[in-house]
Amino acid sequence: MQITILGADGFLGRKLAARLARDKQLGGRLIERLVLFDIAQPSAPVAAFPVACLAGDLTALPAAAIPAGTDIVFDLAAVVSAAAEADYDLGITVNLHGTERIIAACRQHSKPPRVVFTSSVASFGGGQNAVLGDDARQIPANSYGAEKAASELLLQDASRRGFLDALSLRLPTVVVRPGRPNQAASSFVSAIIREPLLGLPADLPVSEDFAVWVASPRSVTDWLLHAATLDSGPMGLDRAVNLPGLSVSVGEMLAALESAKPGASSLVRRVTDPRIAEIVGSWPAAFVTERASRLGFAPHPPFRELVREFIAEDLAATRAERGLPAAGNENGVA
Amino acid sequence: MQITILGADGFLGRKLAARLARDKQLGGRLIERLVLFDIAQPSAPVAAFPVACLAGDLTALPAAAIPAGTDIVFDLAAVVSAAAEADYDLGITVNLHGTERIIAACRQHSKPPRVVFTSSVASFGGGQNAVLGDDARQIPANSYGAEKAASELLLQDASRRGFLDALSLRLPTVVVRPGRPNQAASSFVSAIIREPLLGLPADLPVSEDFAVWVASPRSVTDWLLHAATLDSGPMGLDRAVNLPGLSVSVGEMLAALESAKPGASSLVRRVTDPRIAEIVGSWPAAFVTERASRLGFAPHPPFRELVREFIAEDLAATRAERGLPAAGNENGVA
Repeated sequence: MQITILGADGFLGRKLAARLARDKQLGGRLIERLVLFDIAQPSAPVAAFPVACLAGDLTALPAAAIPAGTDIVFDLAAVVSAAAEADYDLGITVNLHGTERIIAACRQHSKPPRVVFTSSVASFGGGQNAVLGDDARQIPANSYGAEKAASELLLQDASRRGFLDALSLRLPTVVVRPGRPNQAASSFVSAIIREPLLGLPADLPVSEDFAVWVASPRSVTDWLLHAATLDSGPMGLDRAVNLPGLSVSVGEMLAALESAKPGASSLVRRVTDPRIAEIVGSWPAAFVTERASRLGFAPHPPFRELVREFIAEDLAATRAERGLPAAGNENGVA
Repeated sequence: MQITILGADGFLGRKLAARLARDKQLGGRLIERLVLFDIAQPSAPVAAFPVACLAGDLTALPAAAIPAGTDIVFDLAAVVSAAAEADYDLGITVNLHGTERIIAACRQHSKPPRVVFTSSVASFGGGQNAVLGDDARQIPANSYGAEKAASELLLQDASRRGFLDALSLRLPTVVVRPGRPNQAASSFVSAIIREPLLGLPADLPVSEDFAVWVASPRSVTDWLLHAATLDSGPMGLDRAVNLPGLSVSVGEMLAALESAKPGASSLVRRVTDPRIAEIVGSWPAAFVTERASRLGFAPHPPFRELVREFIAEDLAATRAERGLPAAGNENGVA
């Protein structure tokens, strides 16, 4: 099995590559080759199979990124929400034309690769009071969401034509992101957990009753792997799926933080930010995801597990990456 | 008021230009200038205001096509359904990148022009048994429909950003088209009325109980004009609207033809065409269009009116255009 990860240098891409290296197989087939592609050259995980690391621009995707014989393409490359809102042309170029470039590359091959595309709940509107079912329409309230929804349409049509075999996963807000705050409008959702666990302050731009549809990096990785070998036949023309995330309020998140590390939630400062509040305020906070369940996507564990996952897997590495002094026993904070 | 029609050389574009020339005003404001743009240079109608006729490619839209001060852009330019299905790259280039080009042009101006975009029921799936409400999702089963739905998303987002002020009209199949059969998969729906009225045979690629969601050129022109000056405020982010067309079976259409010109329906030959049947078979045949009614789009007259409209307005011209001998009294056929 030959696999490509586009956007491999992001935190999800790195987790996915590490997981593939550890698993050595996918859907019961041995992995023979992995290509990692991003703007900055990704670093290869230690693996039993060859890993090619390529740097380049998605809109000038080299043929080597999706070579002949590729079975699976994970597309995690994107200009995130606040960045696409700040720079319209950049968002269109990467998030829409990049998708066209992937379609063009896959179309060259005799066997259509499975493309696992990371779409987003940001492609929906509705806001705090919405509970969206599988038939909900996408009426995005931000350019990132519009570009993701348009990409879904192109990938769906390319699948129908046999250029590739796409599955679009509408990811919840991924929490807890390791590393540093980023340009995603949802960055604060991770920051209010991650920063206090590092002993650092974090800004909260919304109220405590603000609810978010979230998923942990581990759940998202599991879903990406499930989507890679899922039989797409029963999906028909509709190749996008809302995933079984978790609807959680900021208050509940802070309570889980406090129970993991008493006193930590006092590091969260209330700093209203109308620009962020406007973007994230339009995203729906809850979904009913029956189709995902029928398609075998695993349900999400409760939020306290998500905090534990971050502490166990990413807290020490984040501390090191950011040059912060190591703590005594990270796993012991709970 | 300054107006541009893109795709002005098509039959709807010509009807719209003629109507604007006749009306002299739009929404109570005098028309000061009209720009007609198409691949082939459009011909100007006799008008009380200046009309500029430009030829060019939509994806290399000259600045003169949407000059500063433009109030309204009617976008009727498209690669039609069967053509977009036959040539994927051409469809993407014109139907998607063309939309991006229009957005880029409008964005240059200080006052965002109203863009009336012609989307299509072909952006929906569902097929013969579907009755779609205003909240129906677009799951297109053809590339043309996917490109139209993706364009709607881009125009909606560009409206939210203030680059322009778009309204996307999801046109029913327009019947009776004058002129010649074209590459639209729905071409037969007009042909089975038009050709027998010209004394010519026509092929019917589907069964008589096959139902279609249709609208006459006059209704479509009325809707385009209504959309041009409609207050978009109450529409919120959702700038696309399903129009109040007519659900009619081929059998009902042939009965209306027969009552307009006895014996004419015997010129319709049953010739199955799986390629056409597959494309049009996926289009929904009925809608419930409450939102369009609330927004003031006029309801459609019954199908026999639609046949009368063609006989009164287009039959003689079609006869002349195609070099067929003139009939004695076209209006007398009924």
